[in-house]
Amino acid sequence: MACLLGELAEYAGCRLKGNPSIEIDRVCTLHDGRPGGITFLANRKYARHLPTTTASAVILRSEDVSSCPVAALIHDNPYASYARIAGYIERHDTGQAPAGGIHATAVIHGTAKIGKGVTLGAGVVIGANASIGDNSAVGPGCVISDNVLIGENADLHPNITIYKQCTVGHNALIHAGVVIGADGFGQVQDKGEWIKVPQLGRVVIGDNVEIGANTTIDRGAIEDTVIGNGVKLDNQIQIGHNVRIGDHTAIAGCTGIAGSAEIGCRCTIGGMVVILGHLKIADDVHITAQSMVTKSIKAAGVYSSSTPLQTNARWKRNYARLSQLDDMARRLKELERQLKAGG
Amino acid sequence: MACLLGELAEYAGCRLKGNPSIEIDRVCTLHDGRPGGITFLANRKYARHLPTTTASAVILRSEDVSSCPVAALIHDNPYASYARIAGYIERHDTGQAPAGGIHATAVIHGTAKIGKGVTLGAGVVIGANASIGDNSAVGPGCVISDNVLIGENADLHPNITIYKQCTVGHNALIHAGVVIGADGFGQVQDKGEWIKVPQLGRVVIGDNVEIGANTTIDRGAIEDTVIGNGVKLDNQIQIGHNVRIGDHTAIAGCTGIAGSAEIGCRCTIGGMVVILGHLKIADDVHITAQSMVTKSIKAAGVYSSSTPLQTNARWKRNYARLSQLDDMARRLKELERQLKAGG
Amino acid sequence: MACLLGELAEYAGCRLKGNPSIEIDRVCTLHDGRPGGITFLANRKYARHLPTTTASAVILRSEDVSSCPVAALIHDNPYASYARIAGYIERHDTGQAPAGGIHATAVIHGTAKIGKGVTLGAGVVIGANASIGDNSAVGPGCVISDNVLIGENADLHPNITIYKQCTVGHNALIHAGVVIGADGFGQVQDKGEWIKVPQLGRVVIGDNVEIGANTTIDRGAIEDTVIGNGVKLDNQIQIGHNVRIGDHTAIAGCTGIAGSAEIGCRCTIGGMVVILGHLKIADDVHITAQSMVTKSIKAAGVYSSSTPLQTNARWKRNYARLSQLDDMARRLKELERQLKAGG
Repeated sequence: MACLLGELAEYAGCRLKGNPSIEIDRVCTLHDGRPGGITFLANRKYARHLPTTTASAVILRSEDVSSCPVAALIHDNPYASYARIAGYIERHDTGQAPAGGIHATAVIHGTAKIGKGVTLGAGVVIGANASIGDNSAVGPGCVISDNVLIGENADLHPNITIYKQCTVGHNALIHAGVVIGADGFGQVQDKGEWIKVPQLGRVVIGDNVEIGANTTIDRGAIEDTVIGNGVKLDNQIQIGHNVRIGDHTAIAGCTGIAGSAEIGCRCTIGGMVVILGHLKIADDVHITAQSMVTKSIKAAGVYSSSTPLQTNARWKRNYARLSQLDDMARRLKELERQLKAGG
Repeated sequence: MACLLGELAEYAGCRLKGNPSIEIDRVCTLHDGRPGGITFLANRKYARHLPTTTASAVILRSEDVSSCPVAALIHDNPYASYARIAGYIERHDTGQAPAGGIHATAVIHGTAKIGKGVTLGAGVVIGANASIGDNSAVGPGCVISDNVLIGENADLHPNITIYKQCTVGHNALIHAGVVIGADGFGQVQDKGEWIKVPQLGRVVIGDNVEIGANTTIDRGAIEDTVIGNGVKLDNQIQIGHNVRIGDHTAIAGCTGIAGSAEIGCRCTIGGMVVILGHLKIADDVHITAQSMVTKSIKAAGVYSSSTPLQTNARWKRNYARLSQLDDMARRLKELERQLKAGG
Repeated sequence: MACLLGELAEYAGCRLKGNPSIEIDRVCTLHDGRPGGITFLANRKYARHLPTTTASAVILRSEDVSSCPVAALIHDNPYASYARIAGYIERHDTGQAPAGGIHATAVIHGTAKIGKGVTLGAGVVIGANASIGDNSAVGPGCVISDNVLIGENADLHPNITIYKQCTVGHNALIHAGVVIGADGFGQVQDKGEWIKVPQLGRVVIGDNVEIGANTTIDRGAIEDTVIGNGVKLDNQIQIGHNVRIGDHTAIAGCTGIAGSAEIGCRCTIGGMVVILGHLKIADDVHITAQSMVTKSIKAAGVYSSSTPLQTNARWKRNYARLSQLDDMARRLKELERQLKAGG
């Protein structure tokens, strides 16, 4: 069933130029527009596709409206408006409520509290004293251990494991294969062998958090690992014990954060970044992909440490010199001294 | 039950030097040969083990046959011939067909289509309108969501999750813990918070694809994420939304590919490589381990960006100079100027 | 139920200064001490919290006892003593034995051997001829394939997959989402396509091994992949086929080890390290985070290859020069020659 363009404009707070009765039933791209499709123009790189788009409507900034051959929804942040409208269409299309119901094969401990409108998939295990908030859905194969608390409107995809005592806030979106609350890596050496340090803290996750597939978040050693409100984590991220991540920070895939690192609010951290433990990163810090953070970062800003790609032949010549760099620096200084003395 | 050497030679198109009636029932290494064992010599590094091998037969190139003390199967590509023969022995040994049958605890939606000879393990969940092709096997704990299509002769190991609408071609081999079709990482900032961009595309996977354990492939945002025919992915790879990977490209473990990257055909990508988003890599590009690709690569060839290992003491001296490198380059230029002026 | 301080001191071999009848029922931190709580002082960085701690007892070195306002347990290795005591309190608290029993939904092959006191969670699958040692626990959703052997006192968390024929020693602690024994990445090129090399070896894991969440360990190609006794692996580590890891080596999260690498005993390997294949690392080697090992390491010591973080503005200037480094080295040499000739 289609939505009306006027209804979408109103929902997302956009100014409409065009017919409010146009029916929209899908999203599409600017270069591959479809009848009934809505799209957006945010990145100037794609502006060349606007004059010829065959979408039924485009969300764009006011300066682009004159080049738009079809109906336009005008907003300062077209991508955010697109996100809102796409979500609206998706919910309209599938019906907002999940399938609902508790599968006959779910194994629920007698002391667990299951809220109203909760969906539990096949083979789900809910432990003693665990609690699943109203209207939350837990996918097949998930294991929710004893004393875990999950808020309302949470959406847990299949095969997730949450260890005992961890808590997850409202509106969580957690993807398949995620592990929350496994032991932190606490090992202490004694006479050439490793003794395990028991991991007795929890993982405490705020509201409106998204966690990508196969990401792992370890429980604290004594105190808790804490993920703030509105934090967004991509796939295959590893978060060590006692890490604290501030509100509205977003982290891209494959990044690893070692124990007791403290990350500020509104940071963005690129993919495959390494953040060492026992350090502190200020609010509003942005770290580019494949960087490594070894010390605290005290000032907001953008930071990097990755090295440029070259053809393998040039790389061999240039990067081999890295083992002579200190020597080169000393020789350069000596030449300067000689020239100065000579001059 | 053993195979005859003559039968193996014929199957793999090798020239046989020796007795075709020798019985072969296992593979072994050159340096740890066993009676009834077949092995191969491809890498010259191991040629010193050939004269003393106690294997029953060796697959090798014609130039090595004179040093071989046992039966020889001669072929230009001994490793490929070994791969074929080992597969033949394995199938001969275990029987080609999987155990077969649908486990009583599998949960299959009434509208799902299950092909002939399909094996479904304990606790498997098959969603509405999903389709599993003939002779495919789905291991225990896998969740195959609504409208997923899986081709024939696919082999899915345990605890895999495939999200709704994704498609997998024929002869797929997918290892445990893989997640296909989780949401891409689409987040847009609006007044200091993140708004989720709905991920409405699919993952479309070609024929003859292998996917390693715990690898994750995200669904597209609007259009699809596409994995070509014959692509081979190792473990713990992360593939972002709308990535396209060309036919017969192979990627080693732990590599991460950001959204909308387009990778050509017949590429090889080493382990722990980072490929940023919205770029294009040509056909026949080879990227060595731990490199980062930040721009499009237009020409076939080998590319690198990793840095050389040193003792920690030398590393401290040399790599600290990286923060002076621009300064060193300017001072070097100034010395050249002075010397030229002086000369 | 609380433990007595005297009992803890005796258990961990500590000298007690204070009242042996003090009741201890939890661990806490030095700066957030609780009545009934025990903590430790190992890192001098935290010594400033000692004089004001409100814990009931502190484990520390003899030189710190005079600054301790509460009961003290004195030991040369306070962190190791803390680890022992925390484990003791945890077992005392929860009861040493796991919940016990075989869940009604577990699917156990008729030929499998299940030891005494074994716990099998909901939906566990145990294959033909598999064996689970006495007092071991297997969490919900685990799949233990045919012919797998697991020792005594093993603790397997939920949703683990162990492929056929692999073996795990006594006292294993394996976290959720781990995959043991998936195929190694063996692919051989033949006329532009990849042929799969069958992976016919096993994974053989020693005693007292811990494996972190979502870590993957591939089976060998012909011979086995071998993990020694007392090895400790963090989360999301990838271990390729035929890797051998020596006893008591510890590896931090996200590290990837390529096929046939051989790592010595008592090594420590930092997070996100890449170790290429077919090389050998000596005993007692320590590799810092984000390094890459491309050649064998023959001597014990500390090794590194990561690059320093800078502000993005400085990074752009400095790291761009890496593509001129060979040129800079040649020009420096030429200047030295000119100056020498001129002098």
